Amino acid sequence: MRIATLPDQDWVDSVGEVAGVSLRPWDMVSPLPEDQRAGVGFVVHPYFKDIRRIANTESLPDLRVVQLLTAGYETAVPYLPDGAALCNAAGVHDASTAELTVALTLASLRAIPPFVRAQDRAEWLPLQTWPCLTDRRVLIIGWGRIGKAIARRMLPFEITLTAVASRAREGDELVDRVRGLDEVYDLLPHHDVVVLIVPLNEHTSELVDERFLAAMPDGALLVNVARGKVVKTDALVEATRDGRISAALDVTDPEPLPSDHPLWRIPSVLIAPHVGGATAAMRPRAVALLRSQLERYVEGKPLENVVAGPDA
Amino acid sequence: MRIATLPDQDWVDSVGEVAGVSLRPWDMVSPLPEDQRAGVGFVVHPYFKDIRRIANTESLPDLRVVQLLTAGYETAVPYLPDGAALCNAAGVHDASTAELTVALTLASLRAIPPFVRAQDRAEWLPLQTWPCLTDRRVLIIGWGRIGKAIARRMLPFEITLTAVASRAREGDELVDRVRGLDEVYDLLPHHDVVVLIVPLNEHTSELVDERFLAAMPDGALLVNVARGKVVKTDALVEATRDGRISAALDVTDPEPLPSDHPLWRIPSVLIAPHVGGATAAMRPRAVALLRSQLERYVEGKPLENVVAGPDA
Repeated sequence: MRIATLPDQDWVDSVGEVAGVSLRPWDMVSPLPEDQRAGVGFVVHPYFKDIRRIANTESLPDLRVVQLLTAGYETAVPYLPDGAALCNAAGVHDASTAELTVALTLASLRAIPPFVRAQDRAEWLPLQTWPCLTDRRVLIIGWGRIGKAIARRMLPFEITLTAVASRAREGDELVDRVRGLDEVYDLLPHHDVVVLIVPLNEHTSELVDERFLAAMPDGALLVNVARGKVVKTDALVEATRDGRISAALDVTDPEPLPSDHPLWRIPSVLIAPHVGGATAAMRPRAVALLRSQLERYVEGKPLENVVAGPDA
Repeated sequence: MRIATLPDQDWVDSVGEVAGVSLRPWDMVSPLPEDQRAGVGFVVHPYFKDIRRIANTESLPDLRVVQLLTAGYETAVPYLPDGAALCNAAGVHDASTAELTVALTLASLRAIPPFVRAQDRAEWLPLQTWPCLTDRRVLIIGWGRIGKAIARRMLPFEITLTAVASRAREGDELVDRVRGLDEVYDLLPHHDVVVLIVPLNEHTSELVDERFLAAMPDGALLVNVARGKVVKTDALVEATRDGRISAALDVTDPEPLPSDHPLWRIPSVLIAPHVGGATAAMRPRAVALLRSQLERYVEGKPLENVVAGPDA
């Protein structure tokens, strides 16, 4: 009988029985005892725990698959044993991350932080005209699965949407055409909301710097649900300090943000503690992926989401 | 030349020229001087100002139309002069109010208030699994223009949606069927989010009372964007005090909420100060309505949105 390990008994219970494979809990904190190693071919790394735990799979003679519960995988690659495939959890967090993007955008534009602070003072704010998302021009930078999931949720809000990918290409069911990242400085002055959902790489590291922020119009909102290092934090502090630009961030650089960091204190900045995927939506979607992967593993079919290793 | 009055010069400038009618500013605070009354046939009441100002139209010999900038109109009817039609601003606030509904729902479910409070303490909250809107069962009570506008914005969030109107009827482009308000106690136990967008009348006053709240499952969210009196406030305080039910409210009873009211202090309650329609989305939609109404008035065509008076 093949053996697969899941992060804890809760995950074993959630995934349920899969024909042809025995499921056991393993948190990967230390190597499995010697007498439990044979037959373990598929291991699932615990969500958001130290990625170096993958090194503890080195001693498993039958290991074929290391499955992550995150979409990001770059930090896992150095710890992957020879001969094992690394699979990420692409798709599992799309709904939750796209939802948070809209939540952060609407919370910022519809003044939820000042309402919360007024509530804590037991103060009913006087009538005034507030900003809104309706009629705004939205630029989504990053046109992968999550970028499109964000677009599907934002389009009914009577917005104008522009999509940006690494290179310009033809449109799809959501936009007439996709613009290239090399056009971004021409596009920024004409957009009120900029959403970042790019992977972190040499083209996107500190993409949002002084020049980028200066090209955004007064009153514009930057929403970062990508990675903290896509934004040059010092430049963002300067652009938001006087309220010229607003920002809503699920990720920061550094992360966690230290308590003495100036970003915490800027009224036009809203900070969420990297919660994009960490919601109740994750479990059912992860379970569906794990069952599908385990069935493929048992049947010897090609796995989904292979990002490193022999079949990548 | 026919004369129409608008609340101030800004509105006159926004509406622009309309053939056949002269536009003038009038705030309606006191009656027009006698020599400026002749020819005034169309007056626009200032948004959210004392509705009793309509009584100052009594002395206008040529008055045909009193146009409101709100969707609500019941409080205006007693002040309407004989022979004048009262028109509301149905449609003008749909986008903004529906947007706020989603903003309040997502802010509550995605924990924006605790994030704001943690930000004020410069504290990065530890990783945990948060709730979300994805996969939730949403009950929208009130299936008019705004109820449907809310649904259009919520459906892409991978929810299950049930619509409730005053009476059960066949479905439409958004739902397979519309349930009747008499079924609500059977529906409540099976829904995680309840959105109120009903008109206030004898059937909906204190609709949300102890029995209604007791029928909502533990952890459910009540979102009120209708009128404060649709909810029995004392019952809501009891249901939310221990966190069993959450609430997000754009309207309250009483309103404004006095500073010593217990609702302010309940962590699972989020309060916005009645800002549903008061956004940048209002002006272009109101201008479009006013231009259309003024053209109809000049051309002698039937007006839109007549809610009281000779043609109602």
